[in-house]
Amino acid sequence: MEPLGAEKVPLLASRGRVLASDVGAVADMPHFNRSVMDGYAVRAADTFGCSESQPSYLSCRGTVEMGSSTEGRLLLPGEALRISTGGMLPPGADAVVMWEVTREEEDLLEVWRPVAPGENVARAGEDVRKGETVLEKGRLLRPADVGLLAGLGFEDVSVYRRPKVTVISTGDELVAPGENPGPGRIRNVNQYSLGSWIGHFGAEPLLLGIVPDDFEQIRARAAEGLEKSDMVLISGGSSAGTRDFTRKVVEDLGNPGLLFHGLAIRPGKPTVIGASGGRPVFGLPGHPVSAMVVFLVLVRPVLYRLLGLADGSGLTRIPARLGDNLSSQPGREDYYQVRLSRGGDGLVAEPVFRKSGLVSAMVRGVGMVRVPSESEGLEAGERVEVEVYS
Amino acid sequence: MEPLGAEKVPLLASRGRVLASDVGAVADMPHFNRSVMDGYAVRAADTFGCSESQPSYLSCRGTVEMGSSTEGRLLLPGEALRISTGGMLPPGADAVVMWEVTREEEDLLEVWRPVAPGENVARAGEDVRKGETVLEKGRLLRPADVGLLAGLGFEDVSVYRRPKVTVISTGDELVAPGENPGPGRIRNVNQYSLGSWIGHFGAEPLLLGIVPDDFEQIRARAAEGLEKSDMVLISGGSSAGTRDFTRKVVEDLGNPGLLFHGLAIRPGKPTVIGASGGRPVFGLPGHPVSAMVVFLVLVRPVLYRLLGLADGSGLTRIPARLGDNLSSQPGREDYYQVRLSRGGDGLVAEPVFRKSGLVSAMVRGVGMVRVPSESEGLEAGERVEVEVYS
Repeated sequence: MEPLGAEKVPLLASRGRVLASDVGAVADMPHFNRSVMDGYAVRAADTFGCSESQPSYLSCRGTVEMGSSTEGRLLLPGEALRISTGGMLPPGADAVVMWEVTREEEDLLEVWRPVAPGENVARAGEDVRKGETVLEKGRLLRPADVGLLAGLGFEDVSVYRRPKVTVISTGDELVAPGENPGPGRIRNVNQYSLGSWIGHFGAEPLLLGIVPDDFEQIRARAAEGLEKSDMVLISGGSSAGTRDFTRKVVEDLGNPGLLFHGLAIRPGKPTVIGASGGRPVFGLPGHPVSAMVVFLVLVRPVLYRLLGLADGSGLTRIPARLGDNLSSQPGREDYYQVRLSRGGDGLVAEPVFRKSGLVSAMVRGVGMVRVPSESEGLEAGERVEVEVYS
Repeated sequence: MEPLGAEKVPLLASRGRVLASDVGAVADMPHFNRSVMDGYAVRAADTFGCSESQPSYLSCRGTVEMGSSTEGRLLLPGEALRISTGGMLPPGADAVVMWEVTREEEDLLEVWRPVAPGENVARAGEDVRKGETVLEKGRLLRPADVGLLAGLGFEDVSVYRRPKVTVISTGDELVAPGENPGPGRIRNVNQYSLGSWIGHFGAEPLLLGIVPDDFEQIRARAAEGLEKSDMVLISGGSSAGTRDFTRKVVEDLGNPGLLFHGLAIRPGKPTVIGASGGRPVFGLPGHPVSAMVVFLVLVRPVLYRLLGLADGSGLTRIPARLGDNLSSQPGREDYYQVRLSRGGDGLVAEPVFRKSGLVSAMVRGVGMVRVPSESEGLEAGERVEVEVYS
């Protein structure tokens, strides 16, 4: 699974996008020696040994204006120039004396404390050296990164194209959120929760609506999704019959079609994994909580590949102690939604939706804890890693 | 500081926005008794005492189709109906027998294991009860929340309007990222790092460009920002003279104008805090790292108020142990950028940009640690709370 092609976006629009190539510096940053204090540019040697009782006396030859070049203003021994934070050091000067340890009267400068060469100066290239790689391909760009890119002179940035992900909901019992479900029917939750997760991770959801439990209709909609997007999710009706349709559709799409059906994880056992023409196709459970967990556990890593995210970029793992026992069967991975709270010497991970996987409870989880397949469960107080959704 | 007015946005666009009013359920969810298994709807009493050797025998009267109402199909004692996960229980039925513990032959159903009333059934209102408040005003909407809102029948959501925040950069030495800074000049970093942080927290940046170190021009631009947006940030040139301009401009804006100047925090001592006509105005340091820290420490809480975020919604505090000593002076709060790594029994917070606050180093911090003003510093190994940027 390769990331999609690159595109250029304006600097400010690059936040949250993924860098498509390494970023190197084409010049030193700063590109000249800058003062980091308000004071006087001097030759450090002229201040050696001075003190309040035995000041050095220098001749002040004027002021370095902010933003102006000092290239032609060679500082001779015994001379000083007034300089502000950020001002350019003149050639010859190698240090800045803070104004707090000086007195100036009629261009005669008294210096009461010596400075070492380089003191109070940001040297050219000290921040970033020309040719240095400062941000690597696959990095999720954060606000500070955008600032650095501005400093390096980028007006636009090469980032990976956002993948489009189709979401199809199947089930005769489903109606759109705006409709009034009669008895026996319910509203389509997955289209919106999965669509929002897709957006949350930086991809673009394409919602292809509700399809009845009918092989031909599901197949046609899935083919449309493959044509219009980079990945297709079919959130199954919850009946056994519908699960079979999804499996058969993925088989029928071919090239290669079905890859796996039935996984040793909970929730998510009936998940269908396939691909067609290089595009991943997933059959997810119809139950909203199960669909969300399978999306996070199985679909998300594939989505990260499509996004071009470098390993680990998109994950936040936080250590915590379990607030309650978690049961599991050996040979099966169990995923539990947890809340985090403060307790004892760190964070406590409290399992939510223990009993029945209610939609209302799904909003309380902030992350997941995995019970590995070789384990028979985890006990309250054990150390776990919580994978947080951010 | 009050949040801005509310606006309606389509369901899928509500992710990342802040709820402007409590959301209650107008109906039970689910609004009928649903099966959570594939099997048979029964009267539990009909299965009491059955076993593999002594099955209960029931008469199978047909199938509950997905999405269809069973309102007219009263289940009599001794009867069963085939039902799929998500199907509507008929009146009279109070439990579902999993198909795995049954055998059906010519409409005669053998049941090998008893069920209790309510078993394998999601009762009406079990997930959300009519009238219940499910999401509270001030909540930052996450993907699962959007799913729940879909389930409750919302097609659009009332969220607070996004605040607009003006960023003005002052300084004769500044050029735009696309320009080639001659000797003595540098590119404008703050406009882009602050602008990106503003976007990161869900507000809308309004970049009003670079203004020279000139009172009238800064004042005019600040007034423009007050007219066009909800908050104004003036990132100061770094010279002492420019800092004075910002202070004078904020004073001159009046109504009331200047509130504070000079704070006992580092970085951020010369920060200017004011307001005009009910809109906050901040004068931030010119140095990019200092500007970012002051933004996160002082501007962000005000921005959260404008966004309408309930207390704590936007913060992530993670406990960690310090990886190194942090110095401080009593009477001053110090903020250190840190990276997080795994170590020993939890997370280790490693300080970054110890020495000089380089722009390149700013991209390595993932959060901040505060050294409180009564402290003389913190020692390696001490427990701290890291406020992470997410």
